[in-house]
Amino acid sequence: MKILIREILALLPAADGFRTERTNVAISGDEILAVGDIPEGFRPERVLGGRDRMVIPGLINAHTHAYMSILRSVADDVPFEDWLFRGVQPKEDRLTPEDAYWSALLGMMEMIRRGTTCFNDQQMHIHQTTKAAVDIGMRGVIGRGLSGDAGEEGGERRLREAREEYDRWKDEPLLSFMISPHAPYSCTGALIQKAADLSEELGIGIHIHLSESANEVENVRKEHGGMTPIEYMDSLGLFRRPTLAAHCVHVTDNDIRILADRGVSVVTNPASNMKLGNGFAPVPDMLDAGVNVCLGTDGAASNNAQNMFREMGLLTLIHKGVRQNAVSVSAPDALKMSTVRGARALGFGDSLGEIAPGKKADLAILNLDCPEFTPLNNPVSQLTYAADGSEVETVIIGGEIVMENRHFRKIDEERVMYEVRRRAGAWNQ
Amino acid sequence: MKILIREILALLPAADGFRTERTNVAISGDEILAVGDIPEGFRPERVLGGRDRMVIPGLINAHTHAYMSILRSVADDVPFEDWLFRGVQPKEDRLTPEDAYWSALLGMMEMIRRGTTCFNDQQMHIHQTTKAAVDIGMRGVIGRGLSGDAGEEGGERRLREAREEYDRWKDEPLLSFMISPHAPYSCTGALIQKAADLSEELGIGIHIHLSESANEVENVRKEHGGMTPIEYMDSLGLFRRPTLAAHCVHVTDNDIRILADRGVSVVTNPASNMKLGNGFAPVPDMLDAGVNVCLGTDGAASNNAQNMFREMGLLTLIHKGVRQNAVSVSAPDALKMSTVRGARALGFGDSLGEIAPGKKADLAILNLDCPEFTPLNNPVSQLTYAADGSEVETVIIGGEIVMENRHFRKIDEERVMYEVRRRAGAWNQ
Repeated sequence: MKILIREILALLPAADGFRTERTNVAISGDEILAVGDIPEGFRPERVLGGRDRMVIPGLINAHTHAYMSILRSVADDVPFEDWLFRGVQPKEDRLTPEDAYWSALLGMMEMIRRGTTCFNDQQMHIHQTTKAAVDIGMRGVIGRGLSGDAGEEGGERRLREAREEYDRWKDEPLLSFMISPHAPYSCTGALIQKAADLSEELGIGIHIHLSESANEVENVRKEHGGMTPIEYMDSLGLFRRPTLAAHCVHVTDNDIRILADRGVSVVTNPASNMKLGNGFAPVPDMLDAGVNVCLGTDGAASNNAQNMFREMGLLTLIHKGVRQNAVSVSAPDALKMSTVRGARALGFGDSLGEIAPGKKADLAILNLDCPEFTPLNNPVSQLTYAADGSEVETVIIGGEIVMENRHFRKIDEERVMYEVRRRAGAWNQ
Repeated sequence: MKILIREILALLPAADGFRTERTNVAISGDEILAVGDIPEGFRPERVLGGRDRMVIPGLINAHTHAYMSILRSVADDVPFEDWLFRGVQPKEDRLTPEDAYWSALLGMMEMIRRGTTCFNDQQMHIHQTTKAAVDIGMRGVIGRGLSGDAGEEGGERRLREAREEYDRWKDEPLLSFMISPHAPYSCTGALIQKAADLSEELGIGIHIHLSESANEVENVRKEHGGMTPIEYMDSLGLFRRPTLAAHCVHVTDNDIRILADRGVSVVTNPASNMKLGNGFAPVPDMLDAGVNVCLGTDGAASNNAQNMFREMGLLTLIHKGVRQNAVSVSAPDALKMSTVRGARALGFGDSLGEIAPGKKADLAILNLDCPEFTPLNNPVSQLTYAADGSEVETVIIGGEIVMENRHFRKIDEERVMYEVRRRAGAWNQ
């Protein structure tokens, strides 16, 4: 589709981060055709006005589990074991594939409403998150969660499902895939190696939870000759594949060196790491070491929102607090981690995450006529420190308008919420 | 005015925190008349429907500087000294009283839009924040910032202004006052004592910044025989007056003991303390010691929002992170600190902050028909962990509808934003 966004304040890449400029953005097909003068002969089918509006690259949520939205707030303010074994798992075990579909769709609705256009997801019910992403029109990077042992029935079945899901959906233009072994404590070394082989065969990356809790690190050290989870994965050769490691809260200096040397990307999840009592990832150290760090919300059971604006606010603030350093992790850092760094981590190279000709047309348009952006002293900064994402009005993904003036174009929002409420019935009022 | 809110999910006080119940809330004059059955003969002038809605006590922002909204994001990601001396102060010095009026009005708009009905404010231009609060219809606790020395021209003038402002506005039903010496490093001991005397004479409380930064503590210790700011204030007898201390980030065990023994309330400001690199206040320790801790945003130059939902989210998450304890500072804790604890700290006793007969009718009505509240597994928890305040539709303060369906009833929102933008012109694009 040909779309023209006229005279809008655009968040553009700059040498030192970002700059804003009032300009035009022309979209053709699924890409940005031009930024600035309207190309001669360009005949847009839709023209969006830019008055009092800002266009930003769609945000990239680099780690979540969208199907868990139905489990939002089923277990809050409780220790990790109660959260997992008494709160989340018993309900998760009862979810049907159809429950997972509607729940994932709800998560995507929530993300898009707050300007997220692409998400990386580890899920349990194949074909459900995938179908939901196609139905709502969202860019999704999908991975079937793997656990267990190679040769064992469950472990092998999940590997087969990962391949089956990839085969069925690989030609969908908005979908891509990663191989997603769950974590060092839930997968044997043999399964991890089979996962790496499959990722090599399919030419796609790896997405894994690593070093989330102190407990995990202690247990892995005990079982694997003192190695940290990251050292252990390195010893298995996992990092020969492009890898995205989620969390990395409890990491050593040597772990950070390994991540940097092997080109492993890290997705940090501030809300989830705090909420479950795991603490703060050493993000400034990882950035200093040259690790590609990006940002994610994690699932709704451990966040409990799917709002990347809230996450950017947390990210910039907490590291200033932890380091007692007002300069640590700036607003432009947060925006980079939520756009270009996320794109790189998810295998998009430099084709996604910036407003520039030739990039994918994934964009969010915000209304600036609200207190958070008044006065407009520093739009880049206000995106992170003042906005909460409720300013997002219109979202374009792959050149298609997915939400316009806060109304979804391809799904029935009321039905999605109705279905999720109905299915959650037993826990609900 | 007589208002009936029909069949709404209400956040009600309970022995262990809060409970929710679908019920009716009847308002008469500036108070809640009944919760539950509609009183016989009650003839409401307005009936608000409760379908898919929740009513909560209006949130209390116990520490801000509303007039600083015009300075939002003028200095972010810079060290404290650059923030204050190069970013904020030069612009603050150029503000006219009229600038301060429009800027304060903007801050109140932002607060009310996110469900805050009462704020405690330390300001510099008398009659401006006061007038703005009356004009928008918001409950305000106002203090003229005091600094300098007793006997010295500036110090005495500010004391006179505090009294003058009190005298002029003291009969306004939505306004009350505190005496607001700025901080131990900006006021001499003699001025602090004069402030305490004035607070005694007028029968109102004290609001002061204490132990915000490590630097402040170090300097006060040097100048006052090794005493911490809190020990020093105690030695001056300040705490014989009902006192609300803002920040209290860098406090010792003995400081906490003094605060508890003297019945000093503390208002914690998570975003501001992180953003300026000051760190995390030991809120769980203060709560354990029996200190009445409440919550505030601080001004828009150091937050940079005026959103108590964002602040509740930060509060519950950061202390779980700092303590690596998923049980620390719960959602009900955050809601109490933003309602009844705030009311107590600001001198309202138990007349404000709960939905119960006889309490002040300060209420926020939220739309639950959105992803953040879907499914409604735990409304109390979702208020803190999932909502961002954009769900607030209608706000009642002192029995008057101030905002209805997101439109303000007493002010022209567009004019407020226009005036602030125009006045900020020089720094703006």
